[in-house]
Amino acid sequence: MIMMQVAFQGERGAYSEAAALEYFGQAIEPVPCPSFDEVFAQVESGAVDRGIVPVENSLGGSIHRNYDLFMRHQLHLVGEKIHRVRHCLIGLPGATLDDITLVRSHPQALAQCEHYIDRRGLRCEVVYDTAGAVKMLKDSGQREHAAIASRRAAEVYEMQILEAGIEDDEANYTRFVVLAREPIVPQSPAKTSIVFTLKNQPGALFKALSVFALRDLDLTKIESRPLAGTPWDYLFYLDFSGSVTDEVSHRALDHLSEYATTLRVLGSYSRDMQ
Amino acid sequence: MIMMQVAFQGERGAYSEAAALEYFGQAIEPVPCPSFDEVFAQVESGAVDRGIVPVENSLGGSIHRNYDLFMRHQLHLVGEKIHRVRHCLIGLPGATLDDITLVRSHPQALAQCEHYIDRRGLRCEVVYDTAGAVKMLKDSGQREHAAIASRRAAEVYEMQILEAGIEDDEANYTRFVVLAREPIVPQSPAKTSIVFTLKNQPGALFKALSVFALRDLDLTKIESRPLAGTPWDYLFYLDFSGSVTDEVSHRALDHLSEYATTLRVLGSYSRDMQ
Repeated sequence: MIMMQVAFQGERGAYSEAAALEYFGQAIEPVPCPSFDEVFAQVESGAVDRGIVPVENSLGGSIHRNYDLFMRHQLHLVGEKIHRVRHCLIGLPGATLDDITLVRSHPQALAQCEHYIDRRGLRCEVVYDTAGAVKMLKDSGQREHAAIASRRAAEVYEMQILEAGIEDDEANYTRFVVLAREPIVPQSPAKTSIVFTLKNQPGALFKALSVFALRDLDLTKIESRPLAGTPWDYLFYLDFSGSVTDEVSHRALDHLSEYATTLRVLGSYSRDMQ
Repeated sequence: MIMMQVAFQGERGAYSEAAALEYFGQAIEPVPCPSFDEVFAQVESGAVDRGIVPVENSLGGSIHRNYDLFMRHQLHLVGEKIHRVRHCLIGLPGATLDDITLVRSHPQALAQCEHYIDRRGLRCEVVYDTAGAVKMLKDSGQREHAAIASRRAAEVYEMQILEAGIEDDEANYTRFVVLAREPIVPQSPAKTSIVFTLKNQPGALFKALSVFALRDLDLTKIESRPLAGTPWDYLFYLDFSGSVTDEVSHRALDHLSEYATTLRVLGSYSRDMQ
């Protein structure tokens, strides 16, 4: 059986890998990449079939860097997965909570467990990958060291979960999107993600949104972002319910192109109904 | 002379303090606080005159946690400052770049200097405050240790800047807002920040934006945020050009209250024209 190859950023056991397995099921070959740029490059070159990257988090907001990568690459968004982030404190097999004095993880994960780490009085060391911290723990063999990472990372490296759900805020969700070289015809309910720019004039956004309102197309995300270098111009991220393969969505986008100075359709995909 | 007291999160020399000094000039007494919650609490209780907190970053997006604190406290937004984040590698006086093997900073700052740190092959340790890392460096007296923090932090603790501008991405701006117990009458050009919720139905946002478009009020920010626990409802952050002390803005908000299920005016303030 030839398995679909899916690129993600990080080591085996990263949150992106966990999201990929949730989305595709077990019948894929996850391909670790050192950076998000590399995920896009691997999909674009055909080295892998799909990529998966995070685009927003319920606490931290939109990850503008990954939207920027979308704009630099000619890829299509073909799926989404909303993944609950549950951080685990992971130690060597046989270690106990009281053994631990030092914890390693990605800066974001450490930031999201700040109160827990404070309460336990642990020292922190940064590594640029949650799963990489677990791998490092395994290699070091030090009982007093721990890592913060996903349950999956503990499984991959056969380490022990000392405590699960140590994030300070439980409402911690990350939205991942799936990338491919070719667009798909999504099943309904579908969603379409676009990025566009408008002239900076009163009412410009109102006109832009009229193309959806006049056709009863619901919006599921809208966000303005100041354009670097041109402080009075804005880029907009917008998701709406519908697929570009529907006549009505197609017409709405055609209408939008009358107002937008640039318009890029990132892709249409089945909505994660979680 | 009695100086205005301004609360900020972090130790003396934090980026928030630098933003406060840029906004108010030198004639204030900055008051360090251990958390953002504490900044809001200090302003609310009257212990200080003003507070300053970050609400969005050009790379990381909106800081939802601080918007949440706005919703929990009865304070007014009375100013904004857009601050360019320039990270410095800071060592002991007399230390050289080649001496450094370990660097300490806040997780976000370490994440924003990832490539630089990688290139120099430095070990990283997390502390929950950039300026706190500089203070720790001073106390330790270790030549091979460094901190990543603002230029101001190096000045406050009389440490040496080994390299300035080490952030991976130069387009790194943070927008800070100023909090007070009472609203102000802003000078023009003014800006007003609001938070509102809408019923989840097609065209709801379009109707909401009509109240601004029909009155030629320009939008400078809009962002939807899924409401935790009610996955189909949305909260919106919106900034528009105008002040609630103007008749036209007042009417627009009155009109918006016909559509919005909740509406909260965070405040009107002079726009940072940087």
